[in-house]
Amino acid sequence: MDVTVARIAVVAGDGIGTEVTAQARKVIEAVLPDAEFDDYDLGARFYNRTKEVLPQAIEDELAAHDAILLGAIGDPSVPPGVLERGLLLKLRFDFDQYVNLRPSRLWPGTTSPLAGLKPGEIDMVVVREGTEGLYVGAGGVLHKDTPAEIATEESLNTRHGVERVVRDAFARAQRRERRHLTLVHKTNVLTHAGGLWARTFAAVAAEFPDVTTEYQHIDAASMFMVSNPQRYDVVVTDNLFGDILTDIAAAVTGGIGMAASGSVNPERKYPSTFEPVHGSAPDIAGQGIADPAAAILSASLLLEHLGHPEQARRVSEAVAAEVASRTPGAPLRTAEVGDRVAATAAA
Amino acid sequence: MDVTVARIAVVAGDGIGTEVTAQARKVIEAVLPDAEFDDYDLGARFYNRTKEVLPQAIEDELAAHDAILLGAIGDPSVPPGVLERGLLLKLRFDFDQYVNLRPSRLWPGTTSPLAGLKPGEIDMVVVREGTEGLYVGAGGVLHKDTPAEIATEESLNTRHGVERVVRDAFARAQRRERRHLTLVHKTNVLTHAGGLWARTFAAVAAEFPDVTTEYQHIDAASMFMVSNPQRYDVVVTDNLFGDILTDIAAAVTGGIGMAASGSVNPERKYPSTFEPVHGSAPDIAGQGIADPAAAILSASLLLEHLGHPEQARRVSEAVAAEVASRTPGAPLRTAEVGDRVAATAAA
Ligand SMILES: CC(C)[C@H](C(=O)O)[C@@H](O)C(=O)O
Ligand SMILES: CC(C)[C@H](C(=O)O)[C@@H](O)C(=O)O
Repeated sequence: MDVTVARIAVVAGDGIGTEVTAQARKVIEAVLPDAEFDDYDLGARFYNRTKEVLPQAIEDELAAHDAILLGAIGDPSVPPGVLERGLLLKLRFDFDQYVNLRPSRLWPGTTSPLAGLKPGEIDMVVVREGTEGLYVGAGGVLHKDTPAEIATEESLNTRHGVERVVRDAFARAQRRERRHLTLVHKTNVLTHAGGLWARTFAAVAAEFPDVTTEYQHIDAASMFMVSNPQRYDVVVTDNLFGDILTDIAAAVTGGIGMAASGSVNPERKYPSTFEPVHGSAPDIAGQGIADPAAAILSASLLLEHLGHPEQARRVSEAVAAEVASRTPGAPLRTAEVGDRVAATAAA
Repeated sequence: MDVTVARIAVVAGDGIGTEVTAQARKVIEAVLPDAEFDDYDLGARFYNRTKEVLPQAIEDELAAHDAILLGAIGDPSVPPGVLERGLLLKLRFDFDQYVNLRPSRLWPGTTSPLAGLKPGEIDMVVVREGTEGLYVGAGGVLHKDTPAEIATEESLNTRHGVERVVRDAFARAQRRERRHLTLVHKTNVLTHAGGLWARTFAAVAAEFPDVTTEYQHIDAASMFMVSNPQRYDVVVTDNLFGDILTDIAAAVTGGIGMAASGSVNPERKYPSTFEPVHGSAPDIAGQGIADPAAAILSASLLLEHLGHPEQARRVSEAVAAEVASRTPGAPLRTAEVGDRVAATAAA
């Protein structure tokens, strides 16, 4: 057990981000009464007011925390890429959050768009690389807005970066019941990066003889994720493929309402960020009707990461119970969901 | 009407490729009795025998045809990438097949894994760019098999290449009932290439005021493709995103059994290639039980491309009727399916 007090930076962000994060915080307080919280006002409102995305002084303060609880960032008033690159991705890169953890489960009380699937039948976690690949921002534009324009994007991949995330995924697979790990890439077309991933995967596999392995191309995996999601246990893949695959996984488990995410620095040298996969949903913001389940499940990942597995389990089970108890079609009040989950988890 | 005789190169390929292509050819012969066919033995068997993938002399012969009818290429005996890069992608690039056409429909008699969807409710076509992006093969590996190894992949995109495929997609959308076109990219992360795509899309849109447009990030589009595929009419996207999205589209319309594809050079300066999306399926090859529906639907795209829309329509309707008439669970014989479709289409 960790006896130090958890220091959590809260970046609630925009739109429904503030509403769902308040509930996630409430639930953490219920199971970890000593936790300390510091609020940071970042996101579209901050940017529109200051024209800054993440001042260095604030990033330094964030760095002094154990974890970041993030809501949602973004608003149509800000051009695409500004907040994503300047805040979300900057934190992933600067804080070396190389393991992007995205569990997907078909929970009791949720319905999948896939026919005939029963709760419990899908239970997987995608381990997405978080600091390399096409997300590094390498590339450029020449002769912009002329017929001669060209634009490039470069995917950068290192043995260092691939090996550490692959090893993390193997270790996670080893701790699970099925002990199965699927590597997803596109080795038949992206032969350079695909080769590095495939060779590294094979090398690390030798350290985990009790984990069964499989390789799939991203196009085939995207198809199987729809036709047979039950087959997946742990999946490891690169940054962009992970972005796509986890959204498909969210869709087949009933949408992003339950999709939690952690951008993790496993060594805890830097703070890790925990956030729901959903966005700021400006259309329903401010009404108190956003579902905080994904934000609270992200708080559960935070608790697990900070060394409180028992509290983490109680929180995710409380969310599962709350969701299972909902009357289909009945209106949902964000704060009431948070209250119920906090009460159950604390008990 | 085209009065010249169609010269079709047949590259049946490996595994079930030879079986399904024989049926596609049979159906073309039934509706276009004058068509001339030349067979080319390429693929894994050819490669294993000769260590060559596509000799220049053969490529020159292929170039003298109006279209290429392709089955499936690939076998576990050949390392990943060799046949893909050396044959399939080489043809797309050398023959400037910049429009990769992938229609997806929920046909009567097929079942989607999605609950509650009825035949006719999904009817879309993905127009995938075929000659640029991450498929160009730019990149490399340094310090291979050492801890210092790095691997890169570069996505190259030109205004020329983006504009022509976007314009083709707008023109296709304009000819359809719903006249709706969705651009899919990842502009919030791939800001360089995404910017080029978004600006080009906006410029070309001005020429098609009667087509409604929409933009989605690839991760969101992958999710909506599962949760709400009905919303799509025509989708235009880059080479890699198109590869992924069309496999999801195939999955939600019941698998790759009905997924047809054309790699098209719209100007007909070079031959276009028509092939089912499925692979060579070595596990069921040689038994006469592979479903030729996707290969025959690809032949329908070929007929359409060569200026025979009436024959194309008869072939796709004959496939639809044949599939709708199947007894669920009854064994399928490849040649009998081809016979029935040919008879109906010829009538
Ligand atoms: C907002 C965006 C930059 C981000 C990503 O692409 O990683 C999001 O889609 C996610 O999955 O966390
Ligand atoms: C075989 C492979 C090179 C190809 C691709 O990635 O384009 C295939 O997946 C396809 O979709 O035609």
